[in-house]
Amino acid sequence: MTYDIGFIGYGLMGTAHANALARLPMFFPDAPASNRHIIAGRDEPALEAAADRYGFDRTTTDWREAVADADVVYNLTPNTLHPEPSIEALETDTHVLCEKPLAATLEGADRMVAAAETTDAVAGCAFNYRYVPALVAIRNLVADGVIGDIRHFRGQYLQDFQADPEDPWIWRNDADVAGYGTVGDVGAHTLDLARWLVGDIDRVAGTLTRFADERPVPETGDRSPVTTDDSYGALLEFANGAQGVLEGSRMATGHKNTNAIELIGSKGAVRYDVERFNEFELQREHDRGFQRISATESSDPYMDAWWPAGHGIGWEHTFVHENYEFLSAIDEGSSYAPDFADAYAVQEVVDAIVESDRSGTWVTVP
Amino acid sequence: MTYDIGFIGYGLMGTAHANALARLPMFFPDAPASNRHIIAGRDEPALEAAADRYGFDRTTTDWREAVADADVVYNLTPNTLHPEPSIEALETDTHVLCEKPLAATLEGADRMVAAAETTDAVAGCAFNYRYVPALVAIRNLVADGVIGDIRHFRGQYLQDFQADPEDPWIWRNDADVAGYGTVGDVGAHTLDLARWLVGDIDRVAGTLTRFADERPVPETGDRSPVTTDDSYGALLEFANGAQGVLEGSRMATGHKNTNAIELIGSKGAVRYDVERFNEFELQREHDRGFQRISATESSDPYMDAWWPAGHGIGWEHTFVHENYEFLSAIDEGSSYAPDFADAYAVQEVVDAIVESDRSGTWVTVP
Amino acid sequence: MTYDIGFIGYGLMGTAHANALARLPMFFPDAPASNRHIIAGRDEPALEAAADRYGFDRTTTDWREAVADADVVYNLTPNTLHPEPSIEALETDTHVLCEKPLAATLEGADRMVAAAETTDAVAGCAFNYRYVPALVAIRNLVADGVIGDIRHFRGQYLQDFQADPEDPWIWRNDADVAGYGTVGDVGAHTLDLARWLVGDIDRVAGTLTRFADERPVPETGDRSPVTTDDSYGALLEFANGAQGVLEGSRMATGHKNTNAIELIGSKGAVRYDVERFNEFELQREHDRGFQRISATESSDPYMDAWWPAGHGIGWEHTFVHENYEFLSAIDEGSSYAPDFADAYAVQEVVDAIVESDRSGTWVTVP
Amino acid sequence: MTYDIGFIGYGLMGTAHANALARLPMFFPDAPASNRHIIAGRDEPALEAAADRYGFDRTTTDWREAVADADVVYNLTPNTLHPEPSIEALETDTHVLCEKPLAATLEGADRMVAAAETTDAVAGCAFNYRYVPALVAIRNLVADGVIGDIRHFRGQYLQDFQADPEDPWIWRNDADVAGYGTVGDVGAHTLDLARWLVGDIDRVAGTLTRFADERPVPETGDRSPVTTDDSYGALLEFANGAQGVLEGSRMATGHKNTNAIELIGSKGAVRYDVERFNEFELQREHDRGFQRISATESSDPYMDAWWPAGHGIGWEHTFVHENYEFLSAIDEGSSYAPDFADAYAVQEVVDAIVESDRSGTWVTVP
Repeated sequence: MTYDIGFIGYGLMGTAHANALARLPMFFPDAPASNRHIIAGRDEPALEAAADRYGFDRTTTDWREAVADADVVYNLTPNTLHPEPSIEALETDTHVLCEKPLAATLEGADRMVAAAETTDAVAGCAFNYRYVPALVAIRNLVADGVIGDIRHFRGQYLQDFQADPEDPWIWRNDADVAGYGTVGDVGAHTLDLARWLVGDIDRVAGTLTRFADERPVPETGDRSPVTTDDSYGALLEFANGAQGVLEGSRMATGHKNTNAIELIGSKGAVRYDVERFNEFELQREHDRGFQRISATESSDPYMDAWWPAGHGIGWEHTFVHENYEFLSAIDEGSSYAPDFADAYAVQEVVDAIVESDRSGTWVTVP
Repeated sequence: MTYDIGFIGYGLMGTAHANALARLPMFFPDAPASNRHIIAGRDEPALEAAADRYGFDRTTTDWREAVADADVVYNLTPNTLHPEPSIEALETDTHVLCEKPLAATLEGADRMVAAAETTDAVAGCAFNYRYVPALVAIRNLVADGVIGDIRHFRGQYLQDFQADPEDPWIWRNDADVAGYGTVGDVGAHTLDLARWLVGDIDRVAGTLTRFADERPVPETGDRSPVTTDDSYGALLEFANGAQGVLEGSRMATGHKNTNAIELIGSKGAVRYDVERFNEFELQREHDRGFQRISATESSDPYMDAWWPAGHGIGWEHTFVHENYEFLSAIDEGSSYAPDFADAYAVQEVVDAIVESDRSGTWVTVP
Repeated sequence: MTYDIGFIGYGLMGTAHANALARLPMFFPDAPASNRHIIAGRDEPALEAAADRYGFDRTTTDWREAVADADVVYNLTPNTLHPEPSIEALETDTHVLCEKPLAATLEGADRMVAAAETTDAVAGCAFNYRYVPALVAIRNLVADGVIGDIRHFRGQYLQDFQADPEDPWIWRNDADVAGYGTVGDVGAHTLDLARWLVGDIDRVAGTLTRFADERPVPETGDRSPVTTDDSYGALLEFANGAQGVLEGSRMATGHKNTNAIELIGSKGAVRYDVERFNEFELQREHDRGFQRISATESSDPYMDAWWPAGHGIGWEHTFVHENYEFLSAIDEGSSYAPDFADAYAVQEVVDAIVESDRSGTWVTVP
Repeated sequence: MTYDIGFIGYGLMGTAHANALARLPMFFPDAPASNRHIIAGRDEPALEAAADRYGFDRTTTDWREAVADADVVYNLTPNTLHPEPSIEALETDTHVLCEKPLAATLEGADRMVAAAETTDAVAGCAFNYRYVPALVAIRNLVADGVIGDIRHFRGQYLQDFQADPEDPWIWRNDADVAGYGTVGDVGAHTLDLARWLVGDIDRVAGTLTRFADERPVPETGDRSPVTTDDSYGALLEFANGAQGVLEGSRMATGHKNTNAIELIGSKGAVRYDVERFNEFELQREHDRGFQRISATESSDPYMDAWWPAGHGIGWEHTFVHENYEFLSAIDEGSSYAPDFADAYAVQEVVDAIVESDRSGTWVTVP
């Protein structure tokens, strides 16, 4: 069948997913057919322009209409808006791909997981970095025991898009809308990678920092308070005995999109940085140093669909792979990860980090 | 108007250009409209599959039909087939984008230039690396005098896809079809960058090497002779007094697609490697070292069309930019570079390198 | 005057300091004159060999004799032996350079500080990384406000010399002799850099991990328990509002001597790794990326004493600079840093990290 | 026996060799004993200061006296002064270590080789980069066949110490004193590495460039003509079929001391840059990328004499190793390489490059 897709939201993530859907037929010809059918938003002119550009059949200013009219809903809204549309969709057995973090509060996330448990519809959370070929290759190496038992995990996600305290205020600075600051935004990505690559997390310590207490609002000329953190740091103790150190910041001068990890194990080590998208570094047992590997060979995950070795792809391709896997799972009736339960587990750790900062204690993850 | 596009050839370059055309509406909404209309090839089943996947209206096994039926012809064939279809198209004032090098012989290239001179149709040569955002940024820096007068140019294009003498024979190993080995294949790319970034070349010395005299032909089980070079080296003396050293190889173990340059000037220096697609290195006057710059900001060439800073693009995007510029030039009736004359000038240097190797002399470029 | 130097201990640090003293006259001709006079140790044949190789006048198996007979004592012993000789020397107004950490326990360190406060003799702690030219250059840049207010500090000290659980047991694995594991060994280096480059630390969370519970003792064929940690992680909250994340390990496969830091400030960022001794990376305000700077120019700290730009020095040179500054302070009667009070402040943080791991709370540094 | 050493010259190379001799006893205790005995120069006050600092017994303004009074002569003078003292020493069976290039002219070099052939004294040429541990490791890897048959050699030696045309005139700019410009200065280093690592060179093409025709002379306030090249480029065809491209410059903005090579073979590839002294990169058969190897382990050449793994050494250590090998060869009566014949072979290639630039032909090396 051809799946009618409904987007709620049409910002950056709208572009990323629309592009992904558009590219599937040429590069993943076995992907289920999909139709960009309906797109929901509040600003009608902007919405019309988005629909036109992204190739959607029609628009609506009522997300309920999008939910009702689509086979698959993509929830691309700010965090506080994640629960209601997602839950409504799942209650009618409509598949949902929801952007991360799952919700602005653990309570909201909890309700979403509950909704997902009562349906056979697929409920996925859009942790797109699980679809970086180099990161999939790394996960395979870990699974194959190439680096042995993991001892150390380091995860950074450093950006500078608000490095200047006079950079404009955005909804991500508002605790009421975003729920969390960096810890829930970039931190959720890092924690999803940590769980996916290393395993469950037992105990955390965390610190949140705010470097700018208010920011200008260009539309109004006023200033709005920043009520989320600008950066976080965390220590992790994993169930398997590994130790983790994490950092995230949106005021990290000099870093555009440093989403970087390193895993050090008993036999080897491996590391990756999204800013050098197509390569990773691996030290195997008996190697004398880290190999810099171009993850662009046809044997690398997803790369047989693209170009010859050494002809790299970009960030947007993670969405193509994500859409391919998500739609395939729907079509095949198979399970999909990361699902809402995975995203909830991430959010539990996010909350534990927040709680550690607040309480001044190490916090055990439920 | 909507331009009917006709492809001759449907291999790797077919995928690259078809993808580029498909992506223009979403990311370059001001690009002229185009329709993937007709695609020509010899192997009917493969041709049908390609047409289906790339979204073409129809197919033909007669390239003349494609020329006759298209507004714009993309000549994506092996080098010996570049002149006839290109010339026939230009003679009927049909626009042509021809893959590089312009032809298998300088004589063929000469006829193509002559044909281009007699028409107002646009005749472009597909040196796609001119559309790498980082390389355009570098060209702008050079033009702005940031590195001063250029003294040194180094250009490498090192690949390993035939590093093993038992890697299969391909048409690029056949002098009768390809005309040249690496010197005309990857060397043409390097020389186009050299001319584009530094300027005219006065004098060259060159050396060609073959490391494998024959290779297996998987289809037949036989072995075929290699009649082209496997690598070349060259020294360049530019008209502006700069000095260049060049290397290219398809048997360079350890190098997937090292298309790398460095320009050293009186005030600064700059360098780039396609394998790290989204970054370049720049030392400006008074800097103490090379800055590693992420060419992914909205102020970087073409990047406002794509993603936020730090979210890189890939090799395929060069074709999107190329198609955007080529179709825009057609639509606006403006000139387009690199045109056939540019490509001919490159080929003159290629021939001079071959001649230097043969004659044992430095060779003056006409 | 010529200072008679007395070493207690003759292992790796003995070599490093003996070499440093030997090189001063040729490269730092204004350094105070010194004479390698007496060297104390327990194993007479090894001691004789060391004295011969390092150029000492005589030996003793009684450290008290070395203290009595020297103008300046270098305490190069395992951590538990730091207090007594240092205190005895200071009580007779003999200068002391003591290896780090200051002592195996905070109590011992406290007594050493008390002894230092009662004398005009110089009491220095040998944090040699304060004498890396690149790190001094970084400190100067920070002091000059080049990177603005510091927001983030990351410090790693990763080694693999015990990565294999079957690597031999050493005294550093014995809590009774070393006091601490990595947190006091490499962690003390990182914390000294943190305090020196960023400032006082208010609050910490920490975790200690042991990956090998016992190790073989080659001399006896037995196995001994490991009673210290093999790795640590820490979060720091600095008095100036900066946030820090730290890691140290002696079981970090793939890392020989990764002593690396990054400071991110409101205007720029800077980073350094001892494994690339002669270079650091700096992003200044308005720069588009990190400059890779060779800290080998004559304008770089200490480098006018050595070689032309680009001709790097090595790890051992930190000891030359350290000895130069330490002996000069003695000779000029000036203060010297890092002194025992600095080292005590480091050790307070070390203890706070240990306490955080034990108690499961964030710990306020006294 | 203890060898009385005589230096002729006391500039940078004087410091380097004096330091090397001073360090041998502590780090290479089996090195033959030596005494810094006599040092010859023309400027008496400077000479006295050098003798004092470098630890020489006495001075002379007559190089003949140094030759007569030493067991081993170090010829550290400008190139035109290499032949006479070296020949006079060899004629009296005095050992000679002569700085590179061997002479300012091939004729002078020829006479030096002739003198060396008539004596059992050791005649070495000071190509110190043969004593970089990483480069010795690379040579061993090549000899062991790890990278297979060599196909490509790239050698660069790029410096910026005269990047500004207003940088002061030095003797190296004077053809009458230096004989050659960069081609004989840094080019000789690269060619020595090429011969040592790859083998004999059959045929070359070369180009020499001058970017500044005159430079200021600070002492006089006048300007002097530059009569040597500022940069060179060369193509090499090796006897074993490998192809080489070379570059050298003293006006390469952004490069302090980029002495870098890459060897690409049929099974692997390896590369090195002196600016990252302690590491090299190696891709072996079946590796997926270049390993970055720290050549600081005790199993690496010469490194067991120094520090633990990861604690790097510097440029000056090449001279320690060189002096160790040179004096050991003298003491053991064994042969020493690189000797005068090696240096002459290098100079033949230097001359061939000059000749190619002049004649406009490829030039066969004798």
